Amino acid sequence: MSTSAHENRPGAAPDPAYAAGCAHIDGEFVPIDAARIPITDTGFTRSDCTYDVVATWQGSFFRLDDHLARFERSWQALRLSPPLSRAAMREVLIECVRRSGLKDAYVEMIVTRGSPPPGDRDPRNFKNRFYAFAVPYVWLVQPNDQLRGTHLAIARDVVRIAPEAVDPTVKNFHWGDLTRGLFEAFEREANTVVLLNAAGEVTEGPGFNLFVLSEGRLWTPATGVLLGMTRDTVIELARRDGIATEVTMFGAERLRAADEIFITSTAGGVMPVTRLDGEPIGDGRPGETTLALRQAYWDAHGDPRWATRVLP
Amino acid sequence: MSTSAHENRPGAAPDPAYAAGCAHIDGEFVPIDAARIPITDTGFTRSDCTYDVVATWQGSFFRLDDHLARFERSWQALRLSPPLSRAAMREVLIECVRRSGLKDAYVEMIVTRGSPPPGDRDPRNFKNRFYAFAVPYVWLVQPNDQLRGTHLAIARDVVRIAPEAVDPTVKNFHWGDLTRGLFEAFEREANTVVLLNAAGEVTEGPGFNLFVLSEGRLWTPATGVLLGMTRDTVIELARRDGIATEVTMFGAERLRAADEIFITSTAGGVMPVTRLDGEPIGDGRPGETTLALRQAYWDAHGDPRWATRVLP
Repeated sequence: MSTSAHENRPGAAPDPAYAAGCAHIDGEFVPIDAARIPITDTGFTRSDCTYDVVATWQGSFFRLDDHLARFERSWQALRLSPPLSRAAMREVLIECVRRSGLKDAYVEMIVTRGSPPPGDRDPRNFKNRFYAFAVPYVWLVQPNDQLRGTHLAIARDVVRIAPEAVDPTVKNFHWGDLTRGLFEAFEREANTVVLLNAAGEVTEGPGFNLFVLSEGRLWTPATGVLLGMTRDTVIELARRDGIATEVTMFGAERLRAADEIFITSTAGGVMPVTRLDGEPIGDGRPGETTLALRQAYWDAHGDPRWATRVLP
Repeated sequence: MSTSAHENRPGAAPDPAYAAGCAHIDGEFVPIDAARIPITDTGFTRSDCTYDVVATWQGSFFRLDDHLARFERSWQALRLSPPLSRAAMREVLIECVRRSGLKDAYVEMIVTRGSPPPGDRDPRNFKNRFYAFAVPYVWLVQPNDQLRGTHLAIARDVVRIAPEAVDPTVKNFHWGDLTRGLFEAFEREANTVVLLNAAGEVTEGPGFNLFVLSEGRLWTPATGVLLGMTRDTVIELARRDGIATEVTMFGAERLRAADEIFITSTAGGVMPVTRLDGEPIGDGRPGETTLALRQAYWDAHGDPRWATRVLP
């Protein structure tokens, strides 16, 4: 796991060793394929950790400081104490991107509880850890497939983990329900899935928030979901452009009567949905409002409020 | 991560390099402190994995084949395909213990979904992984503290993840609710916590099942819990010894009216509870039935049906 002094020089230029991705583990930068964490870290064996994902696009981070602020709220909520300051974490993320040379990158930061000292089961005594990595930009739906639109299923056999059990606003790796839903979607020939809560209300899917256009308004679930940064951006852009937007809970019937549906994620932006449980939505093509918001989302990447340039 | 041919010789005698524990990662045996998994393994980043824990006691595994059978049901339920056969996994577990020389060991086996190929988000395409490790026996409650009995809190601020979201009979690392409960217990000066479900019924705690003696019978929750091997052993031993045992759901009021309470885990066996939410249970000392079942549990480790000797 050791790296040379050359490899660990701060502010280094892109290095082919990191072309597939650059990670930061226990204070060292390592190529992504060599990036490993202790098997005893309770971030793994208890999923006792939180994370955040920020993207770079054309050499600039998008909303880097907003992601860092949400990340801080998350690790504070779990009573974690990362070994690095927020400013130092920010530098690590920038350095991971610089070394990789990836202008369009998916950049993940993680704080874990760490490994138990021998014979100790009290998580208050564990030394918390910070990990980060930058890899090529991830698309939940590939750009070409976005032109056709993705096919969504509503999960029938699994419900979303309740906020009273695990708080979804603290970004977490408890994806068992989402993965179970994804397999259900595959069996029904859909590409992805949205889960309902125990009351039958729409929540979110594996890695995304969901928006519906119906009755001339945009709707997105209020609670029991990640307060996604792309979700937040879309709400702001929609309201700016005069689209009435309701942040509230609703049932599957609103999905079934939708004029348009799209999903949002740092991994792909605004992605049109064109089939729901096998049936076309509207005329079965990406909707006009969806495409306008998708364009507005990518245009916003040039907004100096939100862009932090790290690669030329 | 490389090890010498000597270190990887099968059937090796205990080696001081493994005294703190021996792991098996990607086909190699490594000292526990050097055991690392890829940061990109979705076993970590999606908690998409299952595990099991079996103990050795005085040089013999306890119910090794029963644990392997449960483990197989778990990875099949998640549609995982481990790279090793069940017989080969069994040999790895035995070898981890032999190398460590740990007569009393906590032995964990894990199958994960593995790492996504570049640009692929479809878990059906990932190469699944198998990990294992043996470390010194873990006590949820140290033997000396068992004489006093542990202090239990009933969680108020968190409920157990529902089986409709994540199936607790498939042993998993979705511990966010349990860890949240544990912190709540610490604040209320208890040692550990039991969680209720959304209906207010008693379920389980971090790493243990729970039993109550009340109205002359033994009670343990039927659903929404791990079907623990220690729980199973205790039910069998109790019935053998003429203790009526009810496997059924019940509310917190049965705990509050209990004559005795104990918790069960491969990490510690049968462990008396002597305080509930700060109030003594019975006379505040470990109960007679609890202590009899604790003795029966440890005596059962000599039963040839259940013991697999691996160290002299």
